[in-house]
Amino acid sequence: MSDTEYMKLAIKLAKKGAGYVNPNPMVGAVIVKDNRIIGQGYHEIFGGLHAERNALKNCRESPVGATLYVTLEPCCHYGKTPPCTEAIIKSGITRVVVGTLDCNPIVSGKGVKVLEENNIQVVIGILEMECQQLIKVFRKYVTRHIPYVFMKYAMTMDGKIATYTNQSKWISGEKARKQVHQFRHKVTAIMVGVNTVIQDDPLLTCRLENGENPIRIVCDTDLRTPITSKIIKTANDIKTYIATSSIDESKIALYRKCGCEIIYTKKKGNHIDLMNLMQCLGNMQIDSLLLEGGSAMNWSALEQQIVDEVQIYIAPKIFGGSAKSPVSGQGVAFPNDAIMLKPYAFSQVGNDYFIESEVIYPCLQE
Amino acid sequence: MSDTEYMKLAIKLAKKGAGYVNPNPMVGAVIVKDNRIIGQGYHEIFGGLHAERNALKNCRESPVGATLYVTLEPCCHYGKTPPCTEAIIKSGITRVVVGTLDCNPIVSGKGVKVLEENNIQVVIGILEMECQQLIKVFRKYVTRHIPYVFMKYAMTMDGKIATYTNQSKWISGEKARKQVHQFRHKVTAIMVGVNTVIQDDPLLTCRLENGENPIRIVCDTDLRTPITSKIIKTANDIKTYIATSSIDESKIALYRKCGCEIIYTKKKGNHIDLMNLMQCLGNMQIDSLLLEGGSAMNWSALEQQIVDEVQIYIAPKIFGGSAKSPVSGQGVAFPNDAIMLKPYAFSQVGNDYFIESEVIYPCLQE
Repeated sequence: MSDTEYMKLAIKLAKKGAGYVNPNPMVGAVIVKDNRIIGQGYHEIFGGLHAERNALKNCRESPVGATLYVTLEPCCHYGKTPPCTEAIIKSGITRVVVGTLDCNPIVSGKGVKVLEENNIQVVIGILEMECQQLIKVFRKYVTRHIPYVFMKYAMTMDGKIATYTNQSKWISGEKARKQVHQFRHKVTAIMVGVNTVIQDDPLLTCRLENGENPIRIVCDTDLRTPITSKIIKTANDIKTYIATSSIDESKIALYRKCGCEIIYTKKKGNHIDLMNLMQCLGNMQIDSLLLEGGSAMNWSALEQQIVDEVQIYIAPKIFGGSAKSPVSGQGVAFPNDAIMLKPYAFSQVGNDYFIESEVIYPCLQE
Repeated sequence: MSDTEYMKLAIKLAKKGAGYVNPNPMVGAVIVKDNRIIGQGYHEIFGGLHAERNALKNCRESPVGATLYVTLEPCCHYGKTPPCTEAIIKSGITRVVVGTLDCNPIVSGKGVKVLEENNIQVVIGILEMECQQLIKVFRKYVTRHIPYVFMKYAMTMDGKIATYTNQSKWISGEKARKQVHQFRHKVTAIMVGVNTVIQDDPLLTCRLENGENPIRIVCDTDLRTPITSKIIKTANDIKTYIATSSIDESKIALYRKCGCEIIYTKKKGNHIDLMNLMQCLGNMQIDSLLLEGGSAMNWSALEQQIVDEVQIYIAPKIFGGSAKSPVSGQGVAFPNDAIMLKPYAFSQVGNDYFIESEVIYPCLQE
């Protein structure tokens, strides 16, 4: 097997940590000696051992003279665990293949330097794009201290998210809906606008065996979330925040009594200042957020440039009529002003198409 | 090379006839002897030689004992040309590999029978799906005597065909627009609703070198097409029909003076009866029709079940706002009533996605 193939395995291992390691990055590691895999591991849970240490721990024979494949540059600083570079040097490993450098500007390249000073051969950039995908959430969180935001919607092939009678169950098929639940497990939080709560009364949980429920956030400028909604009724069991600009103390007390916590956010025009809300969420160690609509909320989120990626399910059907589209609000006046997407993955999920895209904002500053 | 590979070549040849052979089907043929291709040909132009005869004519050596690969069952009746079975038998070919049987119920299987009666070995159904794709237009036209209808639209990833200021130039990229012009060459006619003429003032020509302009049809119930529109201004040079239910003789005379022909059609509710119009077009030897909107026209066409396929370009951008969606009209009330699509091809054209689907109507009778 080649360096690339071992790195592919390390990437596969890394992904097993999805949903468990946040706000840490997913990392995988493979140790190879004489062309045999003698150890493998990944970062399994936040606060637990790093991938390199798990791989070393799992070694079936001495790693002296072996090669370590790791998706992310090994750390060289004391965090929740001692530096991985130390363990690597001690182990007798003589070659390290790194997928991508650490994105934290404070430490980037330092781990490699320490290894090289200890006569370990280092190769950097094997499957770099794929390894960077693994840390995209971490990269934004660690550099900007706000969550990486995924906007998700399902629409028909004529761009509808409901029929004209406002029926939206179901647009996408069973496999697509299952995939959404898998994704809910991977993110730290999920957010909807209050109108979605009023109209669809969703539960926003992860309905998978052993799946972790994301923290639920309702964006509710004027505290209109019905006390009788499923979200509020289950707020004692599943962490639920209401983000609001209202200072109506009696209403706030009512939501609190039901188990909700309140995030007070600034206003921008008539609505919540979403960037301010993202900063609050970042302070609360929320590194990733899945935005599940509705269409007015989607426009606000894009307009305020908090969205990093758009995930679109397209169902092979046509509703016609004057039904809702996935993004409404003000919109752009001219085609040249469109918010541009950069698709990076395309797949078929059951009968539906699934397109994952980065959002390209004009003059994005990062 | 295998039977499948030779048939693949025959299919490739057949496609060269696109836009020239209508309302005949595209057909390709390859003659192989001792594993060498000794002749190939395709149906090049309506009224011209059939593919089998072109392949025989192009043979570089005697076809005695050779195998003929042909995408469609050879004809055994006198049409514009004498039966191909006759030519095959005379040629000394001993084996014929057929992609698919003729779809004309009057002749289907008869060509094969004649060949077998003359001791020629016949194999049927090599790459049958692909060979049926080649004759889908012909099949509908020959069995139902109405055109095969392609509905085409380009939308953003949030399902918009214009911004809220009604700007629609351009949604899709240059490559997608070029592909549309290539497709306009392949169909016999193109149709839009009068509102599209009023709003966008399109020319609807095929802007490709050596491309053939499709016959232009404006669906105009009450004769509102502006005399100053580009379509009317060029009607003396490019065949143009106005389909109407109006009997306003003075208006009709005006359009006629500009070079347009009038198709009088029945009404269905407040609009043209599209199925009646399709019957008129079928009588006029129009075998294929490209429907280019707008959204009200699209809904009517789907509702009246005249559409066979939907071609959708999806541009990686978001407009937001209350802009138009590709299919409007009444629409369906419930998700379960949706008009279902069956995608059969997916590709990337420049930065845009392109999805081709068949339309599945409830209780379709064919």
